Amino acid sequence: MDKKPLILVTNDDGISAPGLRKLIEIMNEIGEVVVVAPDSPQSAMGHAITINSILHYKKISVYGGTHLEYSCSGTPADCIKLAINEILDRKPDLCVSGINHGSNSSINVIYSGTMSAAIEAGIDGIQAIGFSLLDYKWNADFDGVKNYVKKITVTALDNGIPPNIVLNVNFPKLKSNQINGIKICRQAKARWVEEFDKRTNPMGLDYYWLTGKFINEDKGEDTDEWALSNGYISIVPVKFDFTAHDTIKKLNTWDFGN
Amino acid sequence: MDKKPLILVTNDDGISAPGLRKLIEIMNEIGEVVVVAPDSPQSAMGHAITINSILHYKKISVYGGTHLEYSCSGTPADCIKLAINEILDRKPDLCVSGINHGSNSSINVIYSGTMSAAIEAGIDGIQAIGFSLLDYKWNADFDGVKNYVKKITVTALDNGIPPNIVLNVNFPKLKSNQINGIKICRQAKARWVEEFDKRTNPMGLDYYWLTGKFINEDKGEDTDEWALSNGYISIVPVKFDFTAHDTIKKLNTWDFGN
Repeated sequence: MDKKPLILVTNDDGISAPGLRKLIEIMNEIGEVVVVAPDSPQSAMGHAITINSILHYKKISVYGGTHLEYSCSGTPADCIKLAINEILDRKPDLCVSGINHGSNSSINVIYSGTMSAAIEAGIDGIQAIGFSLLDYKWNADFDGVKNYVKKITVTALDNGIPPNIVLNVNFPKLKSNQINGIKICRQAKARWVEEFDKRTNPMGLDYYWLTGKFINEDKGEDTDEWALSNGYISIVPVKFDFTAHDTIKKLNTWDFGN
Repeated sequence: MDKKPLILVTNDDGISAPGLRKLIEIMNEIGEVVVVAPDSPQSAMGHAITINSILHYKKISVYGGTHLEYSCSGTPADCIKLAINEILDRKPDLCVSGINHGSNSSINVIYSGTMSAAIEAGIDGIQAIGFSLLDYKWNADFDGVKNYVKKITVTALDNGIPPNIVLNVNFPKLKSNQINGIKICRQAKARWVEEFDKRTNPMGLDYYWLTGKFINEDKGEDTDEWALSNGYISIVPVKFDFTAHDTIKKLNTWDFGN
């Protein structure tokens, strides 16, 4: 690419999150950066969009760098829709989302605001990558993955992400020199088993906090969970055609008594 | 099935929605029904779950029928998690979601609260079906699809929905005798092109309403959009392994300079 690529940066932890600040820093070394990110944390928002309420956004001042930043009242998917249709004057060459504070591997992709932003960009025909680090802490060490984020982004831009595909990249919580490399993976078949923490409020009414245990019964060595447990960075190509094409033939044998 | 199946019923339009009331009526003819539905509309919530806030639910009194109903403060996916882990004393044989007021065909599946509930049940190993009628009106005519909803549900229970698959059923807005039958389909490749409606509030600040146009450039006659436009009920088998398996080989040719 001769011209610097236009890179749209977003996340779901909100515009002040250290993971986003690190991603902006890295992307400024690759292209022209515009940031449109939620004004407050939007984790676990899935692919929610705001249709029954209003949206607003504002340009915010940035310390260091020549890029533009906007904070948006909506969900990560809203940020992408607003960026593409209202804020940007041309279509970005790439959208990156993250770096998320916490895993989006395996079934977490479905609950993830980080990945919903990347997927929304993919639906709109924009190459997109979601980045997540397996460390929920606000002060997680994003320096260790900096070179890998850059390498993956540049490689994706050079090769071109195939149409209708979005990359889901997860980093193990390791120092840079402990990482064994990059693996292209499939999403492990895993799930959360919920454990609701039941409490009683001062008025005597019961309420619940959602907590849970992550259960991975998928022992395949080609999964993202295997890669991450074995010191690799996982990259899963994700699609937004949810059709189970293999199942269509089987369902056509069902007799609905038409 | 000798014993009456236990059927968990939910939706995203909220517990008072006519589409849900009709679905409860139909399911009462098939099995033992428990309803756990959002206490307020949750459309376009995607697969959001509530992790940064509390949840509560209450048993509500029901007119007619012997089934139990609970209204829940969360999203459709929260309703399923609460139902399975807190409310029900055994695993349901089936979860049905809807009947949604409005389409969840094509790319709408990704934004849909109705389908997120069905998918959440699928992840938890429960057979699940989402039903939607292509009529957004509150007083949409759900009587016309009653026999089809029953027929599809009974056929699915008799045949067994394959593991890790959830059915996305959409009904055209037609009278019962105008419906041509049922088609098993793939999700059409379509998308929304947003048109933000910009307004100014009394304090002089700009805000936006999200609106949009649905664009379907997929001319395939095996898609849900084709079926619905031609008077058929569409059934798309949906999976929650988002891996683009066909793309893994291609990404393995990328040189990350490891």
